[in-house]
This record gives sequence, structure tokens and C-alpha cells, in this order.
Amino acid sequence: MGRPRTPLLDRERITTTALELVDAQGEFSVPQIARRLGVQTGSVYHHVDGRDGIVELLRERVTEGIDVTALDLRPWDTALATWARSYRAAFAAHPRTIPLLMTSPVRASHVLEQYERAVTLLLDAGFPLPDVMPTLVALENLVLGSALDLTAPVAMWEIEDASATPHLAEALDAAGDERADSAFDLALEGFLAHARRRLEAYAQV
Amino acid sequence: MGRPRTPLLDRERITTTALELVDAQGEFSVPQIARRLGVQTGSVYHHVDGRDGIVELLRERVTEGIDVTALDLRPWDTALATWARSYRAAFAAHPRTIPLLMTSPVRASHVLEQYERAVTLLLDAGFPLPDVMPTLVALENLVLGSALDLTAPVAMWEIEDASATPHLAEALDAAGDERADSAFDLALEGFLAHARRRLEAYAQV
Repeated sequence: MGRPRTPLLDRERITTTALELVDAQGEFSVPQIARRLGVQTGSVYHHVDGRDGIVELLRERVTEGIDVTALDLRPWDTALATWARSYRAAFAAHPRTIPLLMTSPVRASHVLEQYERAVTLLLDAGFPLPDVMPTLVALENLVLGSALDLTAPVAMWEIEDASATPHLAEALDAAGDERADSAFDLALEGFLAHARRRLEAYAQV
Repeated sequence: MGRPRTPLLDRERITTTALELVDAQGEFSVPQIARRLGVQTGSVYHHVDGRDGIVELLRERVTEGIDVTALDLRPWDTALATWARSYRAAFAAHPRTIPLLMTSPVRASHVLEQYERAVTLLLDAGFPLPDVMPTLVALENLVLGSALDLTAPVAMWEIEDASATPHLAEALDAAGDERADSAFDLALEGFLAHARRRLEAYAQV
């Protein structure tokens, strides 16, 4: 008796294939996944909850890289900063999933649980309920914008004639190659400083 | 004598077709453009500077919507805020161009000139040269992250069982439908407040 064959198809393999397609071309289709795995399109649908189900599997796969235990750190701003850095790193590894995941609703239970922990952190810190989601979404936009920026060429501005844009040429020389990380640090620092001041203002009311 | 026929092919039509493709599928290829316009692929290359040239035409087309005169307003923070709002609106109309444009270097002279004006604004305001690009890029990341967020469904979190994520469910109810705009306002306000304080700190050195 031989060992059982590796199954041609399971959710892991479907997710891996979908992620390869999105990494390469920014999109995936179920027939493309089937073709790559050498199976019928219908067989793929047998394993997942439609195309949307595959999007949620992608969301779970990419967000696996986020250090959710960071949300247990205290004080809250250390927790948020550590979480944001690992969130950026996870999406920087698969930046082309960002537009796809941002345009479809979050259904994956693991991911919803991660939001629950982030919301609880902000509530415990003293943020008023109506401010919690805007605060979290503002942080996510900053994180995802910065993750996309990590995919940019180091020489993002190609100046042929420096005399046409002299200040830009000087500013680029002065910024050096650490532009993306400096910009993220600055944005995160600004976000946290503003959140801290808002929290102090709430406490004084 | 009849009027001259509309030319089948020119840069405007190539740009419009590329934008339609990116809006629909997140990507474009030169053969796809040629097929849509009913011409040979080689004919497209005759009008543009390769695929990269089409990307730059897309960049010019999308950024046409940005109110560059906002950068002439004073004080500098009013200028930056007004520019950022129109920047977000321009990209929110074509969010799928964001990953494409962020991963290829800026060469279009009109766009470089817009950066020159933004850099000059920050230098005139008193930002030290090495800080100018990180500040500008941080603002862009926030703007582009928020533009992508405008493409998200209003009901971004689909909670089947509110007992599993009770705080998230409450926070979503409290945030209402204005989540994307509130998050952008908050992020922009935080960014500007932080930039103002940094500027004051520089002035005191």
C-alpha cells in the first residue's frame, strides 16, 4: 500500500495559488486557479464559499503575519504602534492584495477578532465610542498607504532637467534612500501624538 | 471634400483606453489597448514611449483633477490641506490606478512641476530640507490610503455573530456611515497638527 497522494485540491493550495496570482497580476479568477492546479473550475467551488470566500482566505493568509499579541501591550499607544508596524510589514509582503482586500467586506472570523481586540484597546484607553472606528481606520489608511509606498522604486522621481525643478532635486538629495521609512515614522508619530492629545482633551471634559 | 476622419489613434485615446482597462481590471497591456482600438499593437507603440510612457500618460490624466493652485494659498497648512483634499478626490475617481502609479517612477513633467511647488511651499514655510520629502510622502500615503478606503463598502465589517465581537459591533454602530470621511479628516488634522509643532520646534532651535 502506497502513502496517500497529496490531495490536488484543498483550501491551503487554493489560497496559495490565488495569492501567487494576485502578487503577479493584481487579480485572480477562479478559472485561473483551476487551470494552475490542473482541476475543473467546479472542483474549486466545491472547496470554498465562492470567489468571495477565496478573498477571505487571502485576507486570513496575509493578516497571519500581523502580530496580534502587540495589542496586549500597554500603554495603548505602544500597543498601537507595535501593531501598526507589523501590520505594515505583513501587507508590504503582498501589496497587490491591498486594493482587493480594501474593496470587499471583512468576513473572516480571525480578522474580525483582531478588530475586536483593537477596538477594545481603544475603549479601555478612554476613547469615546463614536471615535473608535474613525481612529482605527485612519491608522489603517496610513499603514496601507505606507505599505504600498514600500513597493515604490527608491528613485521615485526621475528628474531629467534639474533646472526645471531645482527645489525638488535638492529635497530628494537631502532625503536619501530612507524616504519610505522616514515618512512612515513621521506619519505614525503624528497620528499617535494627535490621538494622545485628543484623549487628554476627552479626559478634561 | 469630406471633413478629416477622427484619427483612430492618438495619445488621448490611448490614455482613455488604458484608464478604462485599469478602472475595470486593475491593469492594462499594450495588446489589450490595441485590440480595443482596433489597431495593431505596433501602431500603439508608434504614439507612446513604451508601456512606461502610457503609465505616465495615466499619471498626467488622473492628476489633472488635483487643484494645484491650492499650493498658492497661505498659510502653508491651509494650502496643504486644500491640496490634500483635492488629491484624494482625484484618486478616489480612479482608485485602481494607485498601486500602478505608486510602483513606477514619476517622469511626467507636469507632475514633477506639481511636486516642485509642494516642495517650495514647505521650504518657504520653514521646514528643513531633509524633512521635506518625508513630510510630503507621509501626506501622500495618508491621502492615497484614504482614497482607496473610499472604494470600500459602507458596511466594511460583516458581523454574523455580534456576541463574538461585541465591542466592534458597538463601535461600528456608533461610527455610522461617515467612517471614511471622518477617518480622513482625523488623519489629516493629526498630520497637520504634528507638522505645525515640528515647525515651531525648528524655529526655536
